[in-house]
Amino acid sequence: MTLIDGKATAATIKAEIKEEVERMVAAGGKRPHLAAILVGHDGGSETYVNNKVRACDECGFRSTLLRFEEDITEEELLSCVDRLNQDADIDGFIVQLPLPRHIAEQRVIEAIDYRKDVDGFHPINVGRMAIGLPAFVSATPKGILELLRRYDVKTSGSKCVILGRSNIVGKPMSQLMMQKGVDATVTVCHSRSRTLKEECLQADIIIAAIGQPAFLKAEMVKTGAVIIDVGTTRVPDASRKSGFRLQGDVDFEAVAPLASHITPVPGGVGPMTICMLMLNTLSAAKHEYYE
Amino acid sequence: MTLIDGKATAATIKAEIKEEVERMVAAGGKRPHLAAILVGHDGGSETYVNNKVRACDECGFRSTLLRFEEDITEEELLSCVDRLNQDADIDGFIVQLPLPRHIAEQRVIEAIDYRKDVDGFHPINVGRMAIGLPAFVSATPKGILELLRRYDVKTSGSKCVILGRSNIVGKPMSQLMMQKGVDATVTVCHSRSRTLKEECLQADIIIAAIGQPAFLKAEMVKTGAVIIDVGTTRVPDASRKSGFRLQGDVDFEAVAPLASHITPVPGGVGPMTICMLMLNTLSAAKHEYYE
Repeated sequence: MTLIDGKATAATIKAEIKEEVERMVAAGGKRPHLAAILVGHDGGSETYVNNKVRACDECGFRSTLLRFEEDITEEELLSCVDRLNQDADIDGFIVQLPLPRHIAEQRVIEAIDYRKDVDGFHPINVGRMAIGLPAFVSATPKGILELLRRYDVKTSGSKCVILGRSNIVGKPMSQLMMQKGVDATVTVCHSRSRTLKEECLQADIIIAAIGQPAFLKAEMVKTGAVIIDVGTTRVPDASRKSGFRLQGDVDFEAVAPLASHITPVPGGVGPMTICMLMLNTLSAAKHEYYE
Repeated sequence: MTLIDGKATAATIKAEIKEEVERMVAAGGKRPHLAAILVGHDGGSETYVNNKVRACDECGFRSTLLRFEEDITEEELLSCVDRLNQDADIDGFIVQLPLPRHIAEQRVIEAIDYRKDVDGFHPINVGRMAIGLPAFVSATPKGILELLRRYDVKTSGSKCVILGRSNIVGKPMSQLMMQKGVDATVTVCHSRSRTLKEECLQADIIIAAIGQPAFLKAEMVKTGAVIIDVGTTRVPDASRKSGFRLQGDVDFEAVAPLASHITPVPGGVGPMTICMLMLNTLSAAKHEYYE
């Protein structure tokens, strides 16, 4: 069994990015610059944004954090988005989700210039990715594909079962896994699937993104399967200082002995996600997908 | 076995559309107006476009056909697209594909105002559909979903196997079948799939869009499955005046006795496709998805 080390892989990729950035700067180019908009004081969002800012440092990027109070109006937020769209020094930016309920999230997402949409949530990027055109791909599915590549997991012709059909993981993941060059036979299961267990038992690759702690049990996995765990539910744990630990969607202790490859939680998919945001920012700075 | 009559269903829907159009016009509203751009003299394209113009008549729509010779430049074509984008009387329009090789098809598609993109090929519509937002959905997958609905085929929890991963059928079909409210467990198979036969044998619904005549054989289908045939390959047939007949992707004679429902070729999915273009044009005229 090979433990897929997302943390180490992410560190390698960030070092590769930093090297490229320093070459770009040494050649007289501009340093990539990511901006993040954070509204309110949600603990999870603060942590995510801080990690993104730290990753920018590690990659040699400039970063700008724009903070707003919970009571910002949609109009004010949209005008901030517009300023970032216009700002030639900003290569890409993100609006940390979720937003307060009085703001229409989708309207904000669609207001972002798709050429700076390094989260890959704008319909133009979603659509271009779906039809196989160059585009910003959202970080979690992109990071999973990168892990599979770097661990030489054979995807062509294999059966890949994706648990969960969310817009940010399950759906784009299915599109990436079926695209030419990856060539997996993709099945998407969800809460309504009657044949979920049978599908999993036949799978060469299982990507669990269903948001239910320890959902994938040993009796649902065939020997030699590759297991990717996207789940990160906080479950109470009195033995931790924080009072909780992160639990994935996979019953790791029971499933790992069967797997050929498996990602841990934490330290698997998570670190890759922020790292792919960095890669998207580099691509934005290089105008890799758009003029 | 129920033969799914796409021709009759399409006629019913066109009659429903016409009724609604006449009510709109009687209430002082504008008659929906579809324009089509046709470049060159390809026989297949001529037939398709003529059928679309005829369907407009049947639905009570205005239609405008803009014809150009094969040697039109990309710039001239783009400026025609722009005129249609600006023309307030045109509710929706299509550019008949394929285009001559000197014209970048994707550039033309992306030049169409997505609010008039009744083919649903613009990345904004592709992306919005993928994430479950209101959008123009391309006609073939939309028509198949409509057939399943009108024939009361249960989709929730069922296993749906899609053969083929094209941008205009396989991929959007998979997204529609997995969306909330439809709730199928979706598997997409293609030329690289090792487990294609096993997948088909387990399927409650098979949608064959692989472009290989009579590809789906009886031994790949379980009793009671619903079979949707998207294939339309011209095969030589000396007994026909035209010298050819249309052959679907399903070995109809052998598969039909096993199926609970099956679409014929021709007369199944085909007639629904143009009919869904009409429905999209009506939606455009009513500003159903966009302001």
